[in-house]
Amino acid sequence: MTEMYAEQTKQQFEGWEEFYNQSVDDKLEMFNRKGRIFDVIYAQQFNRPFLDQLGRLADFIRQLAKTKMGSQKLRTLLAHKRAMLYFVQPSTRTFLSFQNACYILGLNVSEIRGTSTSSEVKGESPEDTIRTFASYVDLIISRHPEAGFAEKTAWVLNQSDHPAPVLNGGSGPDQHPTQALLDIYTLEREFHNIGGLDGKRIAMVGDLKRGRTVRSLSYLMKNYRDVELIFVSPEEFRMRNDILDFLRRQEIPFKETDDFESIMPAVDAIYMTRIQNEYASDPKSEAETFPDFHFKAEHLQRIHAHCAILHPLPRRYEIDIAVDSDPRAAYWRQERCGMWIRAALIAYIFGVDDEIVSEFD
Amino acid sequence: MTEMYAEQTKQQFEGWEEFYNQSVDDKLEMFNRKGRIFDVIYAQQFNRPFLDQLGRLADFIRQLAKTKMGSQKLRTLLAHKRAMLYFVQPSTRTFLSFQNACYILGLNVSEIRGTSTSSEVKGESPEDTIRTFASYVDLIISRHPEAGFAEKTAWVLNQSDHPAPVLNGGSGPDQHPTQALLDIYTLEREFHNIGGLDGKRIAMVGDLKRGRTVRSLSYLMKNYRDVELIFVSPEEFRMRNDILDFLRRQEIPFKETDDFESIMPAVDAIYMTRIQNEYASDPKSEAETFPDFHFKAEHLQRIHAHCAILHPLPRRYEIDIAVDSDPRAAYWRQERCGMWIRAALIAYIFGVDDEIVSEFD
Amino acid sequence: MTEMYAEQTKQQFEGWEEFYNQSVDDKLEMFNRKGRIFDVIYAQQFNRPFLDQLGRLADFIRQLAKTKMGSQKLRTLLAHKRAMLYFVQPSTRTFLSFQNACYILGLNVSEIRGTSTSSEVKGESPEDTIRTFASYVDLIISRHPEAGFAEKTAWVLNQSDHPAPVLNGGSGPDQHPTQALLDIYTLEREFHNIGGLDGKRIAMVGDLKRGRTVRSLSYLMKNYRDVELIFVSPEEFRMRNDILDFLRRQEIPFKETDDFESIMPAVDAIYMTRIQNEYASDPKSEAETFPDFHFKAEHLQRIHAHCAILHPLPRRYEIDIAVDSDPRAAYWRQERCGMWIRAALIAYIFGVDDEIVSEFD
Repeated sequence: MTEMYAEQTKQQFEGWEEFYNQSVDDKLEMFNRKGRIFDVIYAQQFNRPFLDQLGRLADFIRQLAKTKMGSQKLRTLLAHKRAMLYFVQPSTRTFLSFQNACYILGLNVSEIRGTSTSSEVKGESPEDTIRTFASYVDLIISRHPEAGFAEKTAWVLNQSDHPAPVLNGGSGPDQHPTQALLDIYTLEREFHNIGGLDGKRIAMVGDLKRGRTVRSLSYLMKNYRDVELIFVSPEEFRMRNDILDFLRRQEIPFKETDDFESIMPAVDAIYMTRIQNEYASDPKSEAETFPDFHFKAEHLQRIHAHCAILHPLPRRYEIDIAVDSDPRAAYWRQERCGMWIRAALIAYIFGVDDEIVSEFD
Repeated sequence: MTEMYAEQTKQQFEGWEEFYNQSVDDKLEMFNRKGRIFDVIYAQQFNRPFLDQLGRLADFIRQLAKTKMGSQKLRTLLAHKRAMLYFVQPSTRTFLSFQNACYILGLNVSEIRGTSTSSEVKGESPEDTIRTFASYVDLIISRHPEAGFAEKTAWVLNQSDHPAPVLNGGSGPDQHPTQALLDIYTLEREFHNIGGLDGKRIAMVGDLKRGRTVRSLSYLMKNYRDVELIFVSPEEFRMRNDILDFLRRQEIPFKETDDFESIMPAVDAIYMTRIQNEYASDPKSEAETFPDFHFKAEHLQRIHAHCAILHPLPRRYEIDIAVDSDPRAAYWRQERCGMWIRAALIAYIFGVDDEIVSEFD
Repeated sequence: MTEMYAEQTKQQFEGWEEFYNQSVDDKLEMFNRKGRIFDVIYAQQFNRPFLDQLGRLADFIRQLAKTKMGSQKLRTLLAHKRAMLYFVQPSTRTFLSFQNACYILGLNVSEIRGTSTSSEVKGESPEDTIRTFASYVDLIISRHPEAGFAEKTAWVLNQSDHPAPVLNGGSGPDQHPTQALLDIYTLEREFHNIGGLDGKRIAMVGDLKRGRTVRSLSYLMKNYRDVELIFVSPEEFRMRNDILDFLRRQEIPFKETDDFESIMPAVDAIYMTRIQNEYASDPKSEAETFPDFHFKAEHLQRIHAHCAILHPLPRRYEIDIAVDSDPRAAYWRQERCGMWIRAALIAYIFGVDDEIVSEFD
């Protein structure tokens, strides 16, 4: 039985492997329809006009949501659509922000969290499970520990006669494109009064090797003018060479250091990250907290008056709780930005962005 | 304590056992109110006029759902009602199709999946748990491993002063009436241009002994003229005598065979099923896949140009994935039919069917 | 790592411990905003005008909900709000009644049941988790095994720049204020034709020592004139002295007895409770069922024609199932009262109570 299933699975994967092994850039067109992004799989799908458009859309949505009449309008936009949240991996923020983004636009939501309640226990292939979701709903948002899962999902559905857009809410250790969206959106908002993200110097701190947020964010910097990056990490968690090579090719200046305090006065934003112990194979690094790479209350006096402190959250001890009450602590605002930019993304996917914008004509 | 509880439980079950042991036909009236089906417990509740009416209603609903205005109309119909999905057993399809059927008609949905989060851990009887659901919602949809569970639920509520309709989403190895509904609806649609289900020859293939779908579907054939059934299975999974006797009494012609390929050219539909290993007590039959009872890509050239291939899903290896792209592969359409026919059923239960039909006058 | 985290936690808890250790009366103002209750943490927050107002509001809501037009009106009231149900402890009734109360008023609901799917697994502090909820939703309803959890939640949020009201759906062994609300509301309704709760004699029966419902209810009796309480329990489950002292100070007459049958003819209501075995440390008391403190079918002839039998449910064997069909069995009505009074509470919290009342002008 297992053999037969494996054979069939292989058979189905033939076309898939060929597709999957293409370069990311070659694949991006496959996730578009009618000149628009349809599936959101890679941060590489976002260019500057798209990022600007989506940020503006998110601003409009949150402005509408401030009034009862405005939020009533929002909830009619996609009240005829239904979404599926398929979250095989634990998640609070991504799950809740996507779910509430759906609610803001009126979508109904079905959820599967974990696999214990689903038909996978009966031996169904993941591809069939996904096609089943697409039978009932209009949008699939997935989070999965397996690299490439969301992409495979989109690929399978795009070959069926009943496709639904797929939003990648995190698949494996690498891609988490909507986190990159919300980080960009937050930075643009935090720098709203000083010309936006162009021309800013940004420190990224902590586990740069395994943190997918700092990797995606670094990549997206190619869309902004005169940005400079400073990578602050212990030796064992330095940013990987693929990103550094990319920055060199794009002529984006960067430097690496392990001296956090020395660079504090020089930056416009500090992007803190958590040591990703859950992926650690070396028990030693699990126990260590790397206090030199924490942001402490006394550091507040070393940074710029306009410096924004970000963190993708959850945090453990990387940022003192006492920092929270400082106006430069942007991470709680960043969290809310995640809900608004995801609402904007869903509105865009279903083509109701014009209807939102037209409210402000 | 256990003894006292057992005594009380027994006390409550006295009336129940008497009711339960009646023949199905004698019980059906109990699930009606005002000349309409109120609880959906047995496939035996459905006669031809009802099946025709519900299929028409499902067609209307899916037509309305195609436009934004139509789906807005649908969502107002039962927006004042609330449903409870009580799914103690794993299920993807039945759960999601019921939930989204509720959403289509505007119902709000509460869900309990598994029993770990509920008050049963505090020693509450299942009957009290069900009465609690009925305190808060207007409709209960249940799936339970215990035979008779949905029926008992309906029986308990019908004796309370606050009944809510109960829809059986599968209880134990035998009854799954809404699966039968969707199978009939799918066959009627697939044969839409060739006179519907009347007069057709249908093969049922695989585990006919334990598959509740093929049992219910066989039973419902009494409602159709000149239908002929061919049961294709390994010796150990032949259709049980109760159904065969029923078919003889109803004078519905059938034959049994283990030669799948030979009957392929002769049938209008092939209803594939999965070997129900999860109920197997014999480990040998668990390991076997019975390849002679699979539908393979090369079989597509042996069947009629109009032959519909159905499967209740999930599938494992019974149907080649390569078959999916053939227009005669009806199982993904069948899956979607499940959502629409369930929406029709809920609309009917709450008496808003007329309002839907009147849109097409 | 653990040490550092503990240190930071302690740091954060400094202000909290000082607050927490104040007397309840001194803290109540902290849960108000603009002269209204904002967070619902303690039953002590409810005075007579509030209890009367909320009961009237609940009556209005259930009356509106009886018609399609009325329930459509209700669902528009808070359709622009979103709630979070954070239920770490198993619960059927409290969860479902809160969720459906939200649905009645149009709120969308996110739910976390248990902690296995959330970011707590990544080492996030409970305070950060709660702030995250408040980033996405407008109302947090929590149930937690830890005493003081809901209070801490409210305290943390009230110091953030993005607070959301917190409703305590049970925290630890002591506080469950909305249960007290529904008990009062039920008693007032059951005595509707005989002058309401003022002047009534109420027996509380069973595990008075650990039952938080009877403790809160006793406390709230200070709001009613000429009420008399009779505590009926085995020696080991007598009402604790803190409540007895409170009653003496408030000059609310009470007596204690272990002779249930003798007091039956003398009371206007009997509030039955379950022996809370799940909190038992002594295995002996776990096995015992205390049959002298059960209400049996034959007791129906000993009580007043107007006597109301209540129970917070779930029940085990404390009340014969045969009692259910007697009109004086109020516990199923009491369960439904829980949903309506919670809807009233949520309407009040968001200030849409006037809009409901104005429908009846």
